[in-house]
Amino acid sequence: MVVVMAPEATDEQIAHVTDRVEGVGGQAFVSRGVVRTIIGLVGDIESFHGLNLRSMAGVADVHRISDPFKLVSRQHHAERSTVWVGPAGHQVPIGPDTFTFIAGPCAVETAQQTLEAAEMAKAAGATLLRGGAFKPRTSPYAFQGLGVRGLEILSDVRATTGLPIVTEVVDARDVAVVAEHADMLQIGTRNAANFGLLQAVGDAGKPVLLKRGMNATIEEWLMAAEYVAQRGNLDVVLCERGIRTFEPSTRNTLDISAVPVVQGISHLPIIVDPSHAGGRRDLVVPLSRAAIAVGADGVIVDIHPDPETALCDGPQAILGADLRALAQAVRQLPPILGRVDSSAHARTSVTAVSVGV
Amino acid sequence: MVVVMAPEATDEQIAHVTDRVEGVGGQAFVSRGVVRTIIGLVGDIESFHGLNLRSMAGVADVHRISDPFKLVSRQHHAERSTVWVGPAGHQVPIGPDTFTFIAGPCAVETAQQTLEAAEMAKAAGATLLRGGAFKPRTSPYAFQGLGVRGLEILSDVRATTGLPIVTEVVDARDVAVVAEHADMLQIGTRNAANFGLLQAVGDAGKPVLLKRGMNATIEEWLMAAEYVAQRGNLDVVLCERGIRTFEPSTRNTLDISAVPVVQGISHLPIIVDPSHAGGRRDLVVPLSRAAIAVGADGVIVDIHPDPETALCDGPQAILGADLRALAQAVRQLPPILGRVDSSAHARTSVTAVSVGV
Amino acid sequence: MVVVMAPEATDEQIAHVTDRVEGVGGQAFVSRGVVRTIIGLVGDIESFHGLNLRSMAGVADVHRISDPFKLVSRQHHAERSTVWVGPAGHQVPIGPDTFTFIAGPCAVETAQQTLEAAEMAKAAGATLLRGGAFKPRTSPYAFQGLGVRGLEILSDVRATTGLPIVTEVVDARDVAVVAEHADMLQIGTRNAANFGLLQAVGDAGKPVLLKRGMNATIEEWLMAAEYVAQRGNLDVVLCERGIRTFEPSTRNTLDISAVPVVQGISHLPIIVDPSHAGGRRDLVVPLSRAAIAVGADGVIVDIHPDPETALCDGPQAILGADLRALAQAVRQLPPILGRVDSSAHARTSVTAVSVGV
Amino acid sequence: MVVVMAPEATDEQIAHVTDRVEGVGGQAFVSRGVVRTIIGLVGDIESFHGLNLRSMAGVADVHRISDPFKLVSRQHHAERSTVWVGPAGHQVPIGPDTFTFIAGPCAVETAQQTLEAAEMAKAAGATLLRGGAFKPRTSPYAFQGLGVRGLEILSDVRATTGLPIVTEVVDARDVAVVAEHADMLQIGTRNAANFGLLQAVGDAGKPVLLKRGMNATIEEWLMAAEYVAQRGNLDVVLCERGIRTFEPSTRNTLDISAVPVVQGISHLPIIVDPSHAGGRRDLVVPLSRAAIAVGADGVIVDIHPDPETALCDGPQAILGADLRALAQAVRQLPPILGRVDSSAHARTSVTAVSVGV
Repeated sequence: MVVVMAPEATDEQIAHVTDRVEGVGGQAFVSRGVVRTIIGLVGDIESFHGLNLRSMAGVADVHRISDPFKLVSRQHHAERSTVWVGPAGHQVPIGPDTFTFIAGPCAVETAQQTLEAAEMAKAAGATLLRGGAFKPRTSPYAFQGLGVRGLEILSDVRATTGLPIVTEVVDARDVAVVAEHADMLQIGTRNAANFGLLQAVGDAGKPVLLKRGMNATIEEWLMAAEYVAQRGNLDVVLCERGIRTFEPSTRNTLDISAVPVVQGISHLPIIVDPSHAGGRRDLVVPLSRAAIAVGADGVIVDIHPDPETALCDGPQAILGADLRALAQAVRQLPPILGRVDSSAHARTSVTAVSVGV
Repeated sequence: MVVVMAPEATDEQIAHVTDRVEGVGGQAFVSRGVVRTIIGLVGDIESFHGLNLRSMAGVADVHRISDPFKLVSRQHHAERSTVWVGPAGHQVPIGPDTFTFIAGPCAVETAQQTLEAAEMAKAAGATLLRGGAFKPRTSPYAFQGLGVRGLEILSDVRATTGLPIVTEVVDARDVAVVAEHADMLQIGTRNAANFGLLQAVGDAGKPVLLKRGMNATIEEWLMAAEYVAQRGNLDVVLCERGIRTFEPSTRNTLDISAVPVVQGISHLPIIVDPSHAGGRRDLVVPLSRAAIAVGADGVIVDIHPDPETALCDGPQAILGADLRALAQAVRQLPPILGRVDSSAHARTSVTAVSVGV
Repeated sequence: MVVVMAPEATDEQIAHVTDRVEGVGGQAFVSRGVVRTIIGLVGDIESFHGLNLRSMAGVADVHRISDPFKLVSRQHHAERSTVWVGPAGHQVPIGPDTFTFIAGPCAVETAQQTLEAAEMAKAAGATLLRGGAFKPRTSPYAFQGLGVRGLEILSDVRATTGLPIVTEVVDARDVAVVAEHADMLQIGTRNAANFGLLQAVGDAGKPVLLKRGMNATIEEWLMAAEYVAQRGNLDVVLCERGIRTFEPSTRNTLDISAVPVVQGISHLPIIVDPSHAGGRRDLVVPLSRAAIAVGADGVIVDIHPDPETALCDGPQAILGADLRALAQAVRQLPPILGRVDSSAHARTSVTAVSVGV
Repeated sequence: MVVVMAPEATDEQIAHVTDRVEGVGGQAFVSRGVVRTIIGLVGDIESFHGLNLRSMAGVADVHRISDPFKLVSRQHHAERSTVWVGPAGHQVPIGPDTFTFIAGPCAVETAQQTLEAAEMAKAAGATLLRGGAFKPRTSPYAFQGLGVRGLEILSDVRATTGLPIVTEVVDARDVAVVAEHADMLQIGTRNAANFGLLQAVGDAGKPVLLKRGMNATIEEWLMAAEYVAQRGNLDVVLCERGIRTFEPSTRNTLDISAVPVVQGISHLPIIVDPSHAGGRRDLVVPLSRAAIAVGADGVIVDIHPDPETALCDGPQAILGADLRALAQAVRQLPPILGRVDSSAHARTSVTAVSVGV
């Protein structure tokens, strides 16, 4: 059961609902979105009926949700959400009205390389910068990222370019320091069932980019999002990045169908990572075009000024003609499909925004 | 090793090559395409070198091919091929310059249902009609198709609508009768490693639509195409229709990356079947858009005038608003990506065509 | 719905049942087993109730079957079946009371190689000889088997060694000639959904060894068995041979759980092919031990007198110490698990057999 | 490159090696095993050659390892290892000479239920008790375990029954408290690529039970073990628990082949979890038998005094006749395959043990 509060609901009204729910032995999970707050209830449905929640002050609606995920379900929230990323006054939207292009290096290696990649990204039309400071690597002998030094480089590059930062966090113990520097916290495919980490980013007060586990069903992926939402953070963007199958010619199999499937059952935005899905430079542009056409809310792409020297995933990083082709696709195709470039949206005040929770 | 004959090579010149190859203990597989003939050689490479094949009359070129598939490889044939389907004077192209929309019912049930579906298809802009007379069904108790009666219905509907016919053949013993009625022979996903059937359609003198086995790697799929080509038939169109994975929310997982991967290594055209991939009506339009954007040469889609009564795969058949949305996508998107509608191509003479083998 | 006839039911009594069923618009599929005949009914259940089938002469029982497969379901046939393979007087059982060891070369290459392999098999305790005359190969350029010449070699080797022959048939047009020479017809993994071939072997009057499709669910596999059974042949033995997964260290992933799962829902015997599952010589003995221990009714193993020269699957063929270790496991483990060696069973008369349909 | 120290090597000798390696710019990872210490080197191979490591005091051998995993590879350590679990004087071996039976409830629910399950386990011949206090659950609304209270219950039950405890840790922040109570730390399938957690248990000084990721290749799994080993802990036991495939009749597909594959390339012990692989009570006994026969070093099985009320995975918990059948298999089969029951091994002193690092 989900209680949707009115946009103007006060903290006291919210507390009143949770008190009543707990008074009959239930649990109440409060998730605050940009526009309104949602409260997920767990416990005995019958006892909740007796509370007459719908008549309480500040309550806009009460829904019974049959999906195993509640807060991220579209059952109580037919309108698809927009998540805003970046510092106040420079926020970039990811949602149904726009198409958001995120680009940057797989790993932050040096200040110089990161700045060059960011300038390439910006020139190509990207509005958010990706870059890894903490890298989860299959081998303990592989480059593990620069850590906090990488976060500092990203902060400096944001100051120079104005691009808000998306970066991965791989350990709950690092969430605080990453949240201090980054504008959006990425959860990688290997941590898609690291529930402690999901809860920690749910508590961190920053938007989350939640990649699909390479072995996760769509339902399990939305349950992972529910772990974040349950801690009070509805600003979750999903990212399809390929699943593991028997086909060896690509690193993973991009499950392009996941985009419309997710959009049918969850209100969360969803973007596509063509770089990690294919693992091949020559597939990035066609897969990005497919992502736009299928209705994704954005793409996140690996770029590098010199892929041959990249410390991580060089074979999939694009530059030059490929990046220009991608930039053209991002300019040309979304408007045909009814979307505007995310940079066209300047977010001046919350009240002017029609989308969002 | 592959011998590419000149367009004007004579039968005697071709026979001379095969005689010489067999004279040194090799095997020669002659494949006749629309524009030129290709001869695949199997045997001892060193002995072939001694033949000085390149200097023989009618020989345009000789290539050593490292791919396990030879005749369908792009190594000897950089230009991507176009396959023409339909009776002389009404041929429809499938290839790199056009986008071909194929539609029709999963199964031919009655003359009336087939005609209605064909008229829906034509009105939506389809230039080829699909429809199953022989149906491979997992259960022996399920509707197995009308057989020859279904082929007759398809022939009648072609006469009325002018749409050439694509229909499946499931048994080598039926190839002759199907080839008598159909313009293109479809090999379904369950027969992708039925090598006797592949050889039989290779001998049948009609273009072939070769669906990917739901468990086939891309390389295995191209080897299946090689079985057809080796019998002398290069008019093969590949069709990506989803692979089997762990994800339960779609019937199969559409491997959209297969389109650019195949286009990089084979000269054969490739189309997408969004209906059987997803198995869900609501996914047909977005997946078709993705197919166009990723660079597919066409789509093949299930439609039905009354899906609720369909004897086969009703849940994925589209009509009404979905079909109109698909028609719009097929009109609107391919030109942006540099393709024309397949109906815009009237094929008047072979010599005017620049593509093809 | 399934009608189980009494062991002593006459052909007239069987015909009477089918006539009545067809008289109310139903279809009746007669399957003759060793002990009794089963008739599968398809059509309107209500109309069948009106026939009062249970009271007809020769009818032992009538069952409603909820499984999608009917004739091979254990719902109407709680006792697990035994299939007998070989010429009268020399029949070898495959079923719940015995453990059957089948061995031989992947492909028949020469008379000499086949005889040597058969003698190795016999010395190791095998009671049936496997060997391929028609080979389904992914590449059209690979060795395709000796065809009819291979069948003749197998017949000669049977005459010399006394071992009944199991060999694959890959095309419905070859069923007659293969059935003429072989004692058991094998359907390979690539033909597990080649329904015309399944029906053809169902008509051929010889026991069938039905390998699981590498992408087939257990339910689909049993539906394939139903295609054979529906043509009147209940002498089907299932063979688990690995499924396709993401793990690259083995050719396929042996689904050892399939053995008890199948035994819970079907009365058909089930054996394991450790050679094609792993594709590695070093795994054949441990996987065979696992097959015995999990409760399989037999194993089928590739052996070769000289694997390095094998024309097919040499890397998985065993000989020498591996074959001796396997022979020991087959002697030692089944008795502990309550089974006897299949050679210990001499089948003298049908009436003495308690197992079987 | 791996440096194997002599059993009697001193800390000074170890430090001398690491100093010299670091002196030429390399990294040295010291792993202490029961019998000897191994040092893994990362860096420029050429510079290591110049150090003449083999002649240093305390060095027994130096190996170049071509596997991507080094410390857990069998290349430098042909003998398979034994890991000892439990308090001094009551240690239970897991390794090549024994067969270890681990049993207990999926989740610790109450003191009473845990004690009953432990007594069932002990009566059936189990020598280690499993039980979850911290549970990773797909749904945030599912029972998440009793946490520290669960650990206390396990400690009490160990005091009563004498069975050492295996329990899961799901978050690096909990490793200290879990290590304080448990005798062996389990890493679950969802955390198989949670590298921070792997490093944390590597630092914890307790043996580790490392389950295979449900989507992990065998190589990735061994790389996960390498993360633990690299932190100085070679007491790692691998656990095959099924991988994710397309087959729906079991929760996962038990990859039984993984046991001999792993034993061929790693010296670490490997056991099987038939309960989580199949997810079905009726498969636990046959899959356990298969695990014994294939050569596994143990099994870990879910049992519960009252599965219908279990808060976690009740459908796979066994009791009664199933548990008795399993107990019989564990007594009967391992001796035939050359192993003794793990309870037969009393470990009195390290020097008496011939196996182990």
